[in-house]
Amino acid sequence: MQLTMEGEYAVRAMVHIASLPKDTVAQIPTISREWEIPEKFLRKIVAKLTKGGLLLSHRGAGGGVALARAAKGITLLDVIELVEGPMALNKCLINPRFCRRTNTCSVHVVWCEAQTAMRAILNSRTLAELTQAQT
Amino acid sequence: MQLTMEGEYAVRAMVHIASLPKDTVAQIPTISREWEIPEKFLRKIVAKLTKGGLLLSHRGAGGGVALARAAKGITLLDVIELVEGPMALNKCLINPRFCRRTNTCSVHVVWCEAQTAMRAILNSRTLAELTQAQT
Repeated sequence: MQLTMEGEYAVRAMVHIASLPKDTVAQIPTISREWEIPEKFLRKIVAKLTKGGLLLSHRGAGGGVALARAAKGITLLDVIELVEGPMALNKCLINPRFCRRTNTCSVHVVWCEAQTAMRAILNSRTLAELTQAQT
Repeated sequence: MQLTMEGEYAVRAMVHIASLPKDTVAQIPTISREWEIPEKFLRKIVAKLTKGGLLLSHRGAGGGVALARAAKGITLLDVIELVEGPMALNKCLINPRFCRRTNTCSVHVVWCEAQTAMRAILNSRTLAELTQAQT
């Protein structure tokens, strides 16, 4: 029940990109080096973040990536769920047919509550806030 | 970031055992059949729950398992963490050396907060409450 390395690296990369001055294009090799992310893996993650609408890719000399929208409009949850898919603490929260007791199960209700609390916290922090707080 | 089948089955088994009348010994084959848990896997999980002090094992004819302490003294978190180990939404919450930025990372703080909220909810429900609510 843990964030994957893909999710971890996506968050590192997005925090790096969001911390740059406006209109700066981030270089993949720089992110890779500074944030200890294998470059090949980082390129795959960046492609996913670009396809999902969180990054814009600039090709050619001096090319790289930039946020597709303002950092104050992207939450930690946006980044994580884009690369990992919807967060679900238990299988019954994604597929109600996983267990035939889902409709009457008292534990299912607690899973819903715990998941809602966790997602709400991750969705309450934008990249803008996270980069302001970064020391 | 999801409960394993081992955790899921442990919760099912403990809810079943907690729902029985006082002084009733639960039979492994019955739990296996009623809660759709492969019996061999269930026996391994029950051994872990017994070793960890949540169940008592009664051998011999009419033997089986029973709660080692009152259902109102066992939380959902107790059951999950006994079989899965400490819940940690990200690796940096278990091992601060996982990432050299842990001490200054703004995202780490959010992980701590989300995890605390999630654990608090899972720790606020006892087996007694969960079996009372079960319909």
